[in-house]
Amino acid sequence: MTSNIADTIEQLTHGITPPSEAWRSKARARLDTLTKPLGSLGRLEDIAAQVVAIREDKLAIPSGPIGKSVYVFAADHGITAEGVSAYPREVTHQMVLNFLAHGAAINVLARLHAVDLHVVDVGVDADFQGVAGLHHHKVANGTRNMLQEAAMTNEEMAHALFVGAQLASEAAAAGQTLVAIGEMGIGNTTSASAITCALTGIAPDQATGRGTGLDSAAHERKIRLVGNVLAKHFHGHSRPLSPLEILRCVGGFEIAAMTGVVLAASSQKLAVVVDGFISTAAAALAVAIEPNTLGYLIAGHRSQEPGHALLLKYLTLNPVLALDMRLGEGTGAVLAMSIVESAIRLYSQMATFTSAGVSEASE
Amino acid sequence: MTSNIADTIEQLTHGITPPSEAWRSKARARLDTLTKPLGSLGRLEDIAAQVVAIREDKLAIPSGPIGKSVYVFAADHGITAEGVSAYPREVTHQMVLNFLAHGAAINVLARLHAVDLHVVDVGVDADFQGVAGLHHHKVANGTRNMLQEAAMTNEEMAHALFVGAQLASEAAAAGQTLVAIGEMGIGNTTSASAITCALTGIAPDQATGRGTGLDSAAHERKIRLVGNVLAKHFHGHSRPLSPLEILRCVGGFEIAAMTGVVLAASSQKLAVVVDGFISTAAAALAVAIEPNTLGYLIAGHRSQEPGHALLLKYLTLNPVLALDMRLGEGTGAVLAMSIVESAIRLYSQMATFTSAGVSEASE
Repeated sequence: MTSNIADTIEQLTHGITPPSEAWRSKARARLDTLTKPLGSLGRLEDIAAQVVAIREDKLAIPSGPIGKSVYVFAADHGITAEGVSAYPREVTHQMVLNFLAHGAAINVLARLHAVDLHVVDVGVDADFQGVAGLHHHKVANGTRNMLQEAAMTNEEMAHALFVGAQLASEAAAAGQTLVAIGEMGIGNTTSASAITCALTGIAPDQATGRGTGLDSAAHERKIRLVGNVLAKHFHGHSRPLSPLEILRCVGGFEIAAMTGVVLAASSQKLAVVVDGFISTAAAALAVAIEPNTLGYLIAGHRSQEPGHALLLKYLTLNPVLALDMRLGEGTGAVLAMSIVESAIRLYSQMATFTSAGVSEASE
Repeated sequence: MTSNIADTIEQLTHGITPPSEAWRSKARARLDTLTKPLGSLGRLEDIAAQVVAIREDKLAIPSGPIGKSVYVFAADHGITAEGVSAYPREVTHQMVLNFLAHGAAINVLARLHAVDLHVVDVGVDADFQGVAGLHHHKVANGTRNMLQEAAMTNEEMAHALFVGAQLASEAAAAGQTLVAIGEMGIGNTTSASAITCALTGIAPDQATGRGTGLDSAAHERKIRLVGNVLAKHFHGHSRPLSPLEILRCVGGFEIAAMTGVVLAASSQKLAVVVDGFISTAAAALAVAIEPNTLGYLIAGHRSQEPGHALLLKYLTLNPVLALDMRLGEGTGAVLAMSIVESAIRLYSQMATFTSAGVSEASE
């Protein structure tokens, strides 16, 4: 590791502390005064208390809108040369154009749920020069083929981490309450599977799914490929492996950027709603780099990718939704934001037993 | 059964047919043209297809708001004399006032998710004369104590069924797309448990939970009470029991009204989002009365009440959310409406592969 990347990580992780348990307790105490049976809002109470603990405030947001942003990072992957996806590589580029034309699933959901959508080119193999409506932060035209060499250099990784960190810092500075991370990158479930195996020790056949829709033969090939990628980079290395080495060797630019979002958001006390398998792999790398980031994560959903459930369990994260989605783009995270916002609103707007004159439960 | 109630049911169930499989197929075909991997929206695709099948239209709702209403039926229960709840009976009345003052959980959620909230007095033991903002449809000041006699008469049951049916018809006439059912009634989980046992044959200790927060001793008493109520009304009767007899003997006015909503909504091709254990018990009675209503139901969530999961399984309904909520009031249904609306919007607003110029998957 060059001093460059060490400095980057030192800078990104400096001063990250866990969310405040004192504020979580205050939130719990307030929740028990609201006009509902004790604990009857279930997971919504946990979520509200977590957001209070993260923000270290009373969440007294009585009426105005809650600021919500989703960052969709797009990048290409060298591994697509091995035929790991049901879709051709150019779909990454085409889907970015679809995002900009407001035609994709994430556009519909962000609009409905009043979430600001930020589309970020962090490494698409296409020329977006002059294209409006896009955050231009291209690191390179896709990663290298990780079956043959490391997906990226340390410099590229630092660049991509900083792209995410910078956007999270801007969201914090703008007073956003929630940020979500999502991605678009043909081939990136292969990276997520390799990251999952490398971080957790889970075998490739457990952590590798059908992505956007592989048939059984192609799925078998993908499992073997993940095993070969892991053997190439980590054979003989002792566990735990360095999360930065995992990211550099088998990650992607969009994954590094999402890891950067989680690190910077955690340092700035901003809650991050995580999307599916690939986003969770990025978040898991952030947690491996700095365990105090865990408390800033809200798992938006559990996707159909088998590795995702395993990774959530490894992180001890309980997903808000489980709707068998496997689309990416931040779609599961934005849907979950609607639930998270509900939890925040209930916390800040419900009447108390005293204010409403409602009798409490007998002991 | 008097001819009165037979006529009522004939009137309410007349012409209820299942949702259109032809339209469901058309919806599936359209979903496969949208810019996403095939099937990658998971349950959202099922929900969108169900709503298209119910409405028998293209769901071409490009921009304007989708009409959503939640009906919260409030009523008291004679069984509260037996001490079945952690809260005193007057909380039903107090919570209705809290609804009208916009302080309850359902107020917060309905406001956030743009759902019209209708609070309906169908049998609260309190005088609401002259109170504004309330639908006044009181059948009586609470049901009778079902441990000693039938909870209601046939006439009262018909009245309550019609209250719900009338409101559902008004929603359909107003062009609403989704209606949700919820309730408030201290003591009503005891009715829901008894209904669940009577309909399904599940034992009282499986179908009886802690309601709003009973301790273990009170929970044991509640289980015995449910057993005694069932023995009183149905001992020696052969299964299946008449759903109307179950409703009359161990139901509640709010439960009958919700059953009425489901029957009328089904006859008018309107999707119903069901809330928790009590709402699902009402929906299960509707399905027992007229099996074709099943296709009109969307199970909003799975609550913490143990009987609810069993009842959902019995109905073969897969809940949208599972957040360990147990509050009632329609809260789980309104949260789920946000997901259902998302499914509808995705269906009607996403670009197609052709329109967006995105490459499709290889075979």
